[in-house]
Amino acid sequence: MPSTELSSKDDVIIVKLANGYNLGISLVNAYVEVVKENYINVGSSEGEGATTFVGGQGDRLISIVSTGGTIVSRVEYETGAVRPALTAENLIDLVPELKEMGSIEVVDLYRILSENMTPKHWTSISKAVYEKIVGGADAVIVAHGTDTLPYTSSALAFALRNLPLPIVLVGSQRSSDRPSSDSALNLLASVIVALNAPFGEVVVAMHGSISDNYVLVNRGVKVRKVHSSRRDAFQSVNDIPLAKVIFPDKKLIVINSRYLGRCRVEDLILMPNFEERVAIIKAYPGLSPEIIDFLVDKGFKGIVLEGTGLGHVNEAVIPSIKRAVEVGVVVVMATQTIFGRVNMNVYTTGRKLLMTGVLPASDMLVETAYVKLSWLLANFNDLTEVKNLFMKNLVYEINEVHEDYIYPRWYHGDKL
Amino acid sequence: MPSTELSSKDDVIIVKLANGYNLGISLVNAYVEVVKENYINVGSSEGEGATTFVGGQGDRLISIVSTGGTIVSRVEYETGAVRPALTAENLIDLVPELKEMGSIEVVDLYRILSENMTPKHWTSISKAVYEKIVGGADAVIVAHGTDTLPYTSSALAFALRNLPLPIVLVGSQRSSDRPSSDSALNLLASVIVALNAPFGEVVVAMHGSISDNYVLVNRGVKVRKVHSSRRDAFQSVNDIPLAKVIFPDKKLIVINSRYLGRCRVEDLILMPNFEERVAIIKAYPGLSPEIIDFLVDKGFKGIVLEGTGLGHVNEAVIPSIKRAVEVGVVVVMATQTIFGRVNMNVYTTGRKLLMTGVLPASDMLVETAYVKLSWLLANFNDLTEVKNLFMKNLVYEINEVHEDYIYPRWYHGDKL
Repeated sequence: MPSTELSSKDDVIIVKLANGYNLGISLVNAYVEVVKENYINVGSSEGEGATTFVGGQGDRLISIVSTGGTIVSRVEYETGAVRPALTAENLIDLVPELKEMGSIEVVDLYRILSENMTPKHWTSISKAVYEKIVGGADAVIVAHGTDTLPYTSSALAFALRNLPLPIVLVGSQRSSDRPSSDSALNLLASVIVALNAPFGEVVVAMHGSISDNYVLVNRGVKVRKVHSSRRDAFQSVNDIPLAKVIFPDKKLIVINSRYLGRCRVEDLILMPNFEERVAIIKAYPGLSPEIIDFLVDKGFKGIVLEGTGLGHVNEAVIPSIKRAVEVGVVVVMATQTIFGRVNMNVYTTGRKLLMTGVLPASDMLVETAYVKLSWLLANFNDLTEVKNLFMKNLVYEINEVHEDYIYPRWYHGDKL
Repeated sequence: MPSTELSSKDDVIIVKLANGYNLGISLVNAYVEVVKENYINVGSSEGEGATTFVGGQGDRLISIVSTGGTIVSRVEYETGAVRPALTAENLIDLVPELKEMGSIEVVDLYRILSENMTPKHWTSISKAVYEKIVGGADAVIVAHGTDTLPYTSSALAFALRNLPLPIVLVGSQRSSDRPSSDSALNLLASVIVALNAPFGEVVVAMHGSISDNYVLVNRGVKVRKVHSSRRDAFQSVNDIPLAKVIFPDKKLIVINSRYLGRCRVEDLILMPNFEERVAIIKAYPGLSPEIIDFLVDKGFKGIVLEGTGLGHVNEAVIPSIKRAVEVGVVVVMATQTIFGRVNMNVYTTGRKLLMTGVLPASDMLVETAYVKLSWLLANFNDLTEVKNLFMKNLVYEINEVHEDYIYPRWYHGDKL
């Protein structure tokens, strides 16, 4: 493997062993002989969309829609970078016991890292999931990169309504050819949830700790990746997780009584479109109004402001926001604090923004507010309806009551 | 008070009592008589910059630079909104015991809510603090709004170097005329820290819990407001706080051994300039390259990308980033996960970005990366020096070692 990946020293060569561990060998006075050359064909970023049956037993059909990401990736030995390259068979080989849980099929939809997901991909993933549900799948899992996973889980939550089963998105932080990989446990947990959970919601199943002792099942519209590399990077925000899966027991425990139940298949609704001309603008000292003006001039239909505190931007920007609203752009306000709720009634800045027609996102994550606005603008023609629905709770993306303990606590109280 | 503030019902009038509590009175069949009309003159947003001595005793001079924010605000009874309106005397009246700790002076620099702070304000606050230090102050406190407080604390940390004493920024989440106000305790703690702490760093003193039992002293370049309304909204990120002040003991406990010590006054350096043509662009699915192109065409000197995961943006944006770097714009990468570190060597997207010349911000907060880049561009002419200094640790804004316990844990492990 290239030394850049695991070592910054040029005089060391890193060799990946068959057991997954890496061995560092000093190159000082060393002699290297090439015994065999080997290249991996990483294929295109577009899967064939084809469904592959990979065996298994029993009456229950488990559909895994694969879109790419680390969970289907491995280290590319030519460059040392991680790329999505696993086949359907590889994916199932990670967790052989999946075959005892039902008949497994894998849909090879995309092979992309999730930073390259766009609203168009949300549409095709929604359609693929819809087809699997009406086609009779007993469990639907979506394998996805972690970078933008909460955007896609929010998108599916708005696009697919009255779900007859949970849609479980799953990813991993470390590829399956690394000893520390979380791929296998997350995938196993996702199937346990997909088959057994009582809810008809889009959820995200990821490690709840850095150990392999439990996986958290977070609501898709209330989850965020809050760490760049840890296996327990995904956390519910302004809400508690719906459930956890405990290992080695493989036991599913529902921990949140507030969820949407499973509906009848015939009530399933698909509204898979998303407006692409929506932007997120983060507020910061010195934010220039010309960026807002530019978006309006370019014909953007919606702007999500990621404001400070209770939902503020600098007053210099307000005239441009006023103009945006006047020409029909829907402007909404979420907060960059992440935790807590927007309340634009407390300070004069917030009141001025409310008067210009900026809509408060309550306690929605900025990611969720962005996806919701994009979905509303694509599916409803009447702007008044778009605005009313934005502020209304549709799939528990708004939580009216925050219990004290859902705020994360750094251990400075006890530990320090 | 207007009913919009505490009640959404139009048939209720809210009366603020002298003890700070609010009383709701039903207007059904009620008769309201105006006995006296009263208006508060909120004054201009610019303070006079004048220094007022407000008494106190002892040899030690305590300088409080007031810039505005909730800590110097009260409810404006005409509108029900909270506005900065307190005088120097009002501020000290909050904590009468301050007068036993030294001679107190208040500099009335600004009276603004911190969402309206700009890089120009950072410059004038830096200069005011510098003047107080060289003028012989034994303690310097900056009262500031909470919305953009971490931006200002980062700005002072880069602008004022070799500090002979800690610069303590303090704010509050609830104004002092509310029963739940945190103003008094935070202000008292800030003076205890400013007089007694061994460090020569810019720090932020705010409630560490929702009770009045301790105040955390967070490093100015490593702190973030992570909740919109809670009193314990400020938390250290990718680092532990420097100290805590325990109440009612009023005891200062240093909890981080890694800090810059106090320097000699004659070594103090002031570099107070900040480049205003720097922007933060958040990555999200569908981010359009035309926004990057627009900033380059408008002559922006620096762009801070708030990437996903380990430091990624969608590949469609990379050609525009490449062009930006080629024309001399400094482009840096922080991560929107907040916790963790940027590592652009792991995935192909990161490697492509590194090859275009995007600089990784390591574990710097995006707010800190923005302020640091703005400061470097204003104070160093050589772009190579700007780039090298951006990636170098200057005032502990980069923490090379993350101990496991500094990651915040939601209580799902024990509680749920």
